[in-house]
Amino acid sequence: MVSTVRAVSESVQASFLGDGEVVLSGVSGIRNAKSGDLVFVEDEKSLAPALASDAAAVIAGAFAAVTSPAKPLIIATQPRLAFARAAKFLSPGRDHRPGVHPTAVVHPSARLSPGVAIEACVVIGEGVVIGPGTWIGSGTAIADGVSIGRDCRVHANVTIYSGAQIGDRVVVHAGAVLASDGFGYVQDKTTGRREQFPQIGRLEIGDDVEIGANSTIDRGALEVTSIGRGVKIDNLVHIGHNCQIGEDVVIAAQTGLSGSIVIEKNVVLGGQVGIGEHARIEEGVMLGGQGGVLPNKVLRGQGVAFWGTPAQPVREYLKQLAVLTRLAKRKGKVVL
Amino acid sequence: MVSTVRAVSESVQASFLGDGEVVLSGVSGIRNAKSGDLVFVEDEKSLAPALASDAAAVIAGAFAAVTSPAKPLIIATQPRLAFARAAKFLSPGRDHRPGVHPTAVVHPSARLSPGVAIEACVVIGEGVVIGPGTWIGSGTAIADGVSIGRDCRVHANVTIYSGAQIGDRVVVHAGAVLASDGFGYVQDKTTGRREQFPQIGRLEIGDDVEIGANSTIDRGALEVTSIGRGVKIDNLVHIGHNCQIGEDVVIAAQTGLSGSIVIEKNVVLGGQVGIGEHARIEEGVMLGGQGGVLPNKVLRGQGVAFWGTPAQPVREYLKQLAVLTRLAKRKGKVVL
Amino acid sequence: MVSTVRAVSESVQASFLGDGEVVLSGVSGIRNAKSGDLVFVEDEKSLAPALASDAAAVIAGAFAAVTSPAKPLIIATQPRLAFARAAKFLSPGRDHRPGVHPTAVVHPSARLSPGVAIEACVVIGEGVVIGPGTWIGSGTAIADGVSIGRDCRVHANVTIYSGAQIGDRVVVHAGAVLASDGFGYVQDKTTGRREQFPQIGRLEIGDDVEIGANSTIDRGALEVTSIGRGVKIDNLVHIGHNCQIGEDVVIAAQTGLSGSIVIEKNVVLGGQVGIGEHARIEEGVMLGGQGGVLPNKVLRGQGVAFWGTPAQPVREYLKQLAVLTRLAKRKGKVVL
Repeated sequence: MVSTVRAVSESVQASFLGDGEVVLSGVSGIRNAKSGDLVFVEDEKSLAPALASDAAAVIAGAFAAVTSPAKPLIIATQPRLAFARAAKFLSPGRDHRPGVHPTAVVHPSARLSPGVAIEACVVIGEGVVIGPGTWIGSGTAIADGVSIGRDCRVHANVTIYSGAQIGDRVVVHAGAVLASDGFGYVQDKTTGRREQFPQIGRLEIGDDVEIGANSTIDRGALEVTSIGRGVKIDNLVHIGHNCQIGEDVVIAAQTGLSGSIVIEKNVVLGGQVGIGEHARIEEGVMLGGQGGVLPNKVLRGQGVAFWGTPAQPVREYLKQLAVLTRLAKRKGKVVL
Repeated sequence: MVSTVRAVSESVQASFLGDGEVVLSGVSGIRNAKSGDLVFVEDEKSLAPALASDAAAVIAGAFAAVTSPAKPLIIATQPRLAFARAAKFLSPGRDHRPGVHPTAVVHPSARLSPGVAIEACVVIGEGVVIGPGTWIGSGTAIADGVSIGRDCRVHANVTIYSGAQIGDRVVVHAGAVLASDGFGYVQDKTTGRREQFPQIGRLEIGDDVEIGANSTIDRGALEVTSIGRGVKIDNLVHIGHNCQIGEDVVIAAQTGLSGSIVIEKNVVLGGQVGIGEHARIEEGVMLGGQGGVLPNKVLRGQGVAFWGTPAQPVREYLKQLAVLTRLAKRKGKVVL
Repeated sequence: MVSTVRAVSESVQASFLGDGEVVLSGVSGIRNAKSGDLVFVEDEKSLAPALASDAAAVIAGAFAAVTSPAKPLIIATQPRLAFARAAKFLSPGRDHRPGVHPTAVVHPSARLSPGVAIEACVVIGEGVVIGPGTWIGSGTAIADGVSIGRDCRVHANVTIYSGAQIGDRVVVHAGAVLASDGFGYVQDKTTGRREQFPQIGRLEIGDDVEIGANSTIDRGALEVTSIGRGVKIDNLVHIGHNCQIGEDVVIAAQTGLSGSIVIEKNVVLGGQVGIGEHARIEEGVMLGGQGGVLPNKVLRGQGVAFWGTPAQPVREYLKQLAVLTRLAKRKGKVVL
């Protein structure tokens, strides 16, 4: 979409300096900016290269407002945030034409709201409910009874089992599997063989959640797995049955949560973290990449960073690594 | 399905106390039990809450048989197992109507047994054989020559390459990929470039195996990858070419096995375990989450727990962690 | 395909000893060789079992040329490489019949070259370009504007988002997701909520790349994610936005790269490796399984092996493990 510095400024509730009629057609990084592009800077030292680039205009913080700009400047309290919003304003995403592709297979009892777009080869089961403006990518399979809110984007080749209830503005990336059976068995003591423990609970996903490509989230065994509003989940993440993930939690790629874990709000989990069953990660904890938490453990401390397996406050863990390095560096044989 | 305390007791070969005609319509956890639900308890202290819940009846062990029950009690030697079986008796799973959906693409040479249900947009190749009662979920692709046994459930968007032979009552969750090419290359010493080593072997999966969502199992290079009867594999697990997995092995989520590994029967692997090529994990070993085993290593010991990377008997590993913690806690500079 | 010792020798540019008219119909391992099979040996001690097997002929190195062979011998400088090439010569892979399956949904603006084979239920978007001889497996979804080179094999149920440009002879295994949105958000300081940073860059994949089943590669945020010629990626690997992977890099299963990482050419990453954002792994480094690299770190050294988290040269890391083991083995309480 083509717009102007003035219109973009208004859309992100910022002021601007310079010519408001300069045309903007997209966003880019400073290095690959082309004519018509909007770029952003967060500090003084990036401002000069931004102004020297081929970009049409620059979003910057108040620090830039004193200069006499070579290009129009959009002045925002949070330049990165304003840039993200400007990008969405300029490129609101592919316009998915509402309607059901003729190759899609939609059960007659499914209730599709106005503005829903169902791509080719999608399969939608009995009693499914889909809110207005939601887009379902090709090849996705949605089982009986699933409900999906409004303005969601469910990409291609996703599978959603029965028992999932999904909020508004949720994004599910390709290949993700939602509400699959949890991993729970009962071993028969006489034969040693395992039989499945019932995996018949539900999965509830709040508004504004994003779920990465090929991630898997199991439904509850008897109760519910819940993912709070605003949770962001990267690719190839696993979340087991009965987990409770609080609001605004961030989970990086390939992290795995076994069953019945509580992650309180605003927790940040790095990549490849592993957490044992029934553990509890309290509000605001940060856990570094590859960290491991044993079953039933509790990590606590607003803003406290943990690392290692078993996870410890990062300062203590670094001390241990340092001691070990020093010990191993002693010349000759270590005699203790 | 609606049944009675008497009928459920008989179906799980247990006795009951109290009114056998009480109606049961499902199972649940104690906390969310509704009228008509069956719950279970494994110890005395859970019995009172179970009896106080809205559940219609309770499965319990012999310890409960002396009480004069406020609700009907089903008395079982293994209450959890009886509960799992009662759940299956009461909810035998969605009844998949036999037949081939008109949008499925089935090669004319494929042999589908009576009672097979093929959902929408499934693609079935030349010479595929599918046993009676097996259900294939929508969007699943089954390549030429694959054979699948009876009463299997292959969920949506699964891909099965040529060379797979699957037993009876196998469950494959959505997005899993079976019999894909192994990761083997030959580097040309003159150019430094890699060419694929032949990946033309087979994948054999025994009866009663369960494979989690988005897991991947490669076929053998020249020979066979085999998964023994009763093996349970969680989500996002990787099993490389030529691995031999014994009966009743349990593999938790995100664990990865590189090539030519032997896992003997009854081994339990925690989540995010990594095992190097040609390693051997002997019968009954348990390996804790995130544990790592180097190539060619052997872990042995019925019921022995290992942990850490490289994996060690857990007692020794915990001693090491304790020593390190103590060293790092010494005040001031550590002088050794 | 049925051929002869003479023809196979010529195809792999090797000489042979013995009867060149012996018929060859496939390749196998020595243990399961059947009549008509070609096997290979790389050392003297494997030669006798190979000659004693049911194989029709043996590929070997110059060391075997002095013997008076019981079977025809193909003598190659690199026997394993010659074997890989002979396998391809004898079994050039399933012949995918060119054409578009009637259930595929191909946008009228897509340009399919001669010899392209599009399987059932494939969905191809606007402006997609596919080179000659490329095969697209069933259920795969290719979004608007994607370009794919010649002689590629894209297996079933793959998803390729807009913004991907794929070279020649690339193999993409089932369930892989290419050019998905990167994991980048901006947190609004006033509300604490996260909004997506623009993920509108591209993904460029060079010639002769292989991508494993269920792996995920994100496109650039504003710029490009690039995968160099000849890179081999195993199953369930994650590559974040803006990563630059050099030529001939090998990445084993379940390894994860967060954003903006540079991996120079000829690097080998073991399985379950995790690398933090903006790290740089220089040419020829090897990083052992489960190794971890912190954000912004640089690993360097042609042929140097690293291991552990944080990754260190393997000799130093092993010394540390040894010291720790010794400390923990001291009898009684450790007094320091």
